[in-house]
Amino acid sequence: MPQTKKIRIAIDAMGGDHAPQSVVAGAVLAEKCYGDFIELILVGQAGKIALELQTLGAEKLPIEVVHCDEVIGMGDEPAESVRKKPNSSIVVGLQLHKEGKADGFISAGNTGAVMAASLLTLGRLKGVNRPAIGSFFPTEKGSAIVLDVGANSDCKAINLYQFALMGALYFSQMFSNDNPRVGLLSIGEEKSKGNELTIASHKLISTADLNFSGNIEGRDILKGKVDVVVCDGFVGNIILKFAESIESFLGELVRRRVRSNIFAKIGALLLKPAFKDLKKNLDYAEYGGAPLLGINGVSIICHGGSSPKAFKNAVRMAKTMIEKNLNDQIENRIAASGSFIASDLKVKQS
Amino acid sequence: MPQTKKIRIAIDAMGGDHAPQSVVAGAVLAEKCYGDFIELILVGQAGKIALELQTLGAEKLPIEVVHCDEVIGMGDEPAESVRKKPNSSIVVGLQLHKEGKADGFISAGNTGAVMAASLLTLGRLKGVNRPAIGSFFPTEKGSAIVLDVGANSDCKAINLYQFALMGALYFSQMFSNDNPRVGLLSIGEEKSKGNELTIASHKLISTADLNFSGNIEGRDILKGKVDVVVCDGFVGNIILKFAESIESFLGELVRRRVRSNIFAKIGALLLKPAFKDLKKNLDYAEYGGAPLLGINGVSIICHGGSSPKAFKNAVRMAKTMIEKNLNDQIENRIAASGSFIASDLKVKQS
Repeated sequence: MPQTKKIRIAIDAMGGDHAPQSVVAGAVLAEKCYGDFIELILVGQAGKIALELQTLGAEKLPIEVVHCDEVIGMGDEPAESVRKKPNSSIVVGLQLHKEGKADGFISAGNTGAVMAASLLTLGRLKGVNRPAIGSFFPTEKGSAIVLDVGANSDCKAINLYQFALMGALYFSQMFSNDNPRVGLLSIGEEKSKGNELTIASHKLISTADLNFSGNIEGRDILKGKVDVVVCDGFVGNIILKFAESIESFLGELVRRRVRSNIFAKIGALLLKPAFKDLKKNLDYAEYGGAPLLGINGVSIICHGGSSPKAFKNAVRMAKTMIEKNLNDQIENRIAASGSFIASDLKVKQS
Repeated sequence: MPQTKKIRIAIDAMGGDHAPQSVVAGAVLAEKCYGDFIELILVGQAGKIALELQTLGAEKLPIEVVHCDEVIGMGDEPAESVRKKPNSSIVVGLQLHKEGKADGFISAGNTGAVMAASLLTLGRLKGVNRPAIGSFFPTEKGSAIVLDVGANSDCKAINLYQFALMGALYFSQMFSNDNPRVGLLSIGEEKSKGNELTIASHKLISTADLNFSGNIEGRDILKGKVDVVVCDGFVGNIILKFAESIESFLGELVRRRVRSNIFAKIGALLLKPAFKDLKKNLDYAEYGGAPLLGINGVSIICHGGSSPKAFKNAVRMAKTMIEKNLNDQIENRIAASGSFIASDLKVKQS
């Protein structure tokens, strides 16, 4: 009987605020859930990883460990650290992926370094001008993906056009939704509203074979007006970080109220499950991570504070992307729009 | 005994979702609170205004009514409607201000039209390149002003530099704070992080005599890391509208939970005052309105859904700006930085 080849995913064991503890615990969780379909490789300082596996009583699980000494810190300068630390868990893990020893890579380490090393090691998909980070946002109706949330701080219309294509493909594969609604984040709904970038991007995206809802406004993201929100990485990153701060802000407001009132205190206790729900809905780690779309491989960037559950979800995300051949689809889609892009670029350059 | 001249404020009675009802009720509230220092002029369809005053039993209050027929609708194209409706409450109200018959103007009408008409009728302050809309955000520590939130979708460094100066002056006058902290909204705290605009703006703002905290990130706004948040009107407007949508999003999440659970229901009832508090904290109308800073006059733009209390607060805001001669201070401050600006512009143009 022929054996189906398992999907192999390398995980940076040294990345994140609670590494390697949380990462190893997440890998153990993922192995238990998806072990029939995947093989995990933990990349990092073998001694520390072994200790964590032992603590969890998981030494016997079929999780491979690839040792490397160096660690890129959260505060290290991305490009420089990637160059200066070739034996770091990020660089080694991505190298395994490049050499075909792993089919994907996950890290909760220094975002800039993961991004730089992914680009450097794996390169871009054919036709993709700029890769983008896609992050899930909770909405009143479910989830939406926002991209780019930080890979590109200055963009051109062609970039946003490709983000729209990649985001729609990604969303459709992750949610089995054939026709996701795509919106361009701007100010004002009319196509003439926005800044120079969005006005030019609106024109380009309108020509694509997409379920394009046109411009959306800041208020439409959480409302769930669209499934895919397209913006440059500067705007996307600011919105993402603003959204991440809402929970702490609300907590502070409620705490102030509750401190001075016994009824409010009881109310808060009774509502605890609802608040927990809320927290979960606002906790981006629950989605697993944010893929770097447009690179020639699967590289998923997790939140620094990722829980074991978040790592498990990131493994599921990588698994789905690999199973569905998302990158082939992106290349085909970009190629199909190729001649158009080329003529557009010509216009821009002339 | 010499009589102190009262401050005269014109209010667009026809602007906003609940006009003229809410506006007239707000004017009555303001007259009762600040009548010793101000005189109000309601601008709009006199018959309708009279009816509202009558309903409120306020016919005898010393509120002047200036009649005009036309109304600029919320959906009207701003620049065009200002040109085509010279007898609209927005244009007539600003004209009163220009002629010195009023010292300030307040409207909850079509934002774009108020902006366009203010610029056209009143002009800019000497030295100001671009006026900006400043909007208050609640923070964990109190309030911060974010500017620009929508007047300028494409900015240059010199604009953000002037927003920083104007925002700091405005905040210091409104909160009697001599040394407000100013932050430049960007991605990453290092001065080298951000997009082309913020990197250039960081350099310029660093040279100003301001309590400049450098770059701040999206998460720092609600945390209250700074008092004045500087950004272009595209980013500011998206953040403002995103923030305004949080309340509805949270409400939906809590409702879903509460519907299925009796304990949660009781909890929600007991926590109602806390939620009301929250709503108030997230309700931008509570701040009164958002001033258009940098124009040669006082023009305050209110939220379309403004309550009577919001209009009252907007009157207080206008009163403070006029009493403190904010515009003189802005002109002086801009003039003091004038030679510097001129040399910078020369560099940009060369």
